[in-house]
Amino acid sequence: MREELKLENIRSNLIRLEETIIFSLIERAQFAQNKIIYRTNGIPIKNYSGSFMLYLLSGTEKLHAMVRRYTAPDEHPFTEVPKEQLLSPLAYEWPIKKTEININAEILETYIDKIIPLICKKEDDGNYGSSSVNDISTLQAFSKRIHYGKYVAEAKFQDSSLEYTKLIKASDSGAIMQRLTDKKVEEHLLERVSLKAQTYGQEPDVKNPVFKINPEIIKKIYADYIIPFTKKVELLYLLERTD
Amino acid sequence: MREELKLENIRSNLIRLEETIIFSLIERAQFAQNKIIYRTNGIPIKNYSGSFMLYLLSGTEKLHAMVRRYTAPDEHPFTEVPKEQLLSPLAYEWPIKKTEININAEILETYIDKIIPLICKKEDDGNYGSSSVNDISTLQAFSKRIHYGKYVAEAKFQDSSLEYTKLIKASDSGAIMQRLTDKKVEEHLLERVSLKAQTYGQEPDVKNPVFKINPEIIKKIYADYIIPFTKKVELLYLLERTD
Repeated sequence: MREELKLENIRSNLIRLEETIIFSLIERAQFAQNKIIYRTNGIPIKNYSGSFMLYLLSGTEKLHAMVRRYTAPDEHPFTEVPKEQLLSPLAYEWPIKKTEININAEILETYIDKIIPLICKKEDDGNYGSSSVNDISTLQAFSKRIHYGKYVAEAKFQDSSLEYTKLIKASDSGAIMQRLTDKKVEEHLLERVSLKAQTYGQEPDVKNPVFKINPEIIKKIYADYIIPFTKKVELLYLLERTD
Repeated sequence: MREELKLENIRSNLIRLEETIIFSLIERAQFAQNKIIYRTNGIPIKNYSGSFMLYLLSGTEKLHAMVRRYTAPDEHPFTEVPKEQLLSPLAYEWPIKKTEININAEILETYIDKIIPLICKKEDDGNYGSSSVNDISTLQAFSKRIHYGKYVAEAKFQDSSLEYTKLIKASDSGAIMQRLTDKKVEEHLLERVSLKAQTYGQEPDVKNPVFKINPEIIKKIYADYIIPFTKKVELLYLLERTD
């Protein structure tokens, strides 16, 4: 099996991404919700009709696309990015099957409608730029973590390809999902995330630390959104997986 | 005195920025030094002669400039940014005197030459994009923290304007620097940073946690670079400060 598909490597990547996600959420939470940045034309921008945050997200992705970000198997854009590149193309070896699966539209909607209200004060503090820049890092971390489901699925498929092939041929999504689910692993992950959220979200020199984000909320974001989205990507990937 | 210049507000902003700086350093440290991203034409980019990281930094700053980032009194670009803006200009009230002081060139050089080798493995792991994107966040956090010295200096000036005016008129940099220095406050800050670095840099669920960055190194970065640079900005600001 290829290095990238060894379960211990996948696991350590996913664990390391937890820090990135928790740090990003804590950074975003220092600013208010600032709803206006998500509203189409909420802040009028010359020659652009979209939201302020989307303007910055799209500009950032265009820039990153120029240096080849979205040719990597673990990167997925939220917006339309140019095919043109300023670097000579790199021949990545793809450890997974090439697929068009990209659930970023759903991630973006959930992030704005569900996650932001969970972590931010429902106010406007005028910090539109900082909020958007932090949104972009957080969304990129979410997207990377969730689409890493493709790697998880490929590793699981290679581990028991006979069983999966049978279910895939029958398009039995329910049974595939059941096979993908390991409640014990999920519970262990949620405990670890909660512990990290407690550790990173506190002001360590203060007598009675107030958490920057309630650790239960970070746990909830994993339980209700990040894990289900990752499993959705795993399922979508497997449904397309044929040898 | 204006809200932004109250010492308790300045203090709480500086303390909050410690998290941002420590999180960014930890994020950057997960990737190797990747020296090639800092070398002019190290990675050839069409129609651009500069380093890979500078290409991304400059593109990011141009994008942020379009939505007015660098018209805010606490934001300073590293690269040349267009005056053109896509938003109607905002009339900020400047709590400090307008000045051209911007020591980002020095911050950038120190960051690449001194700080990166302290926190990253001296290797190349091919993660050029991720390293650069993390460099940009870290540099922006450093720059914000250090140029916040203008606010510190203005607050101190307003607090004892007579004494400072005398020293400023005499251009007595040594005496100004001495007056700006409070060893006790600095030591307390370094202790707090060290404690935060310990807390945020550990893997909390592991028996014998290995720190992602040695907390002593983060303390050293504050002691050797961040504090001296901030004081340099304070001094430069005061030398220009006339009523």
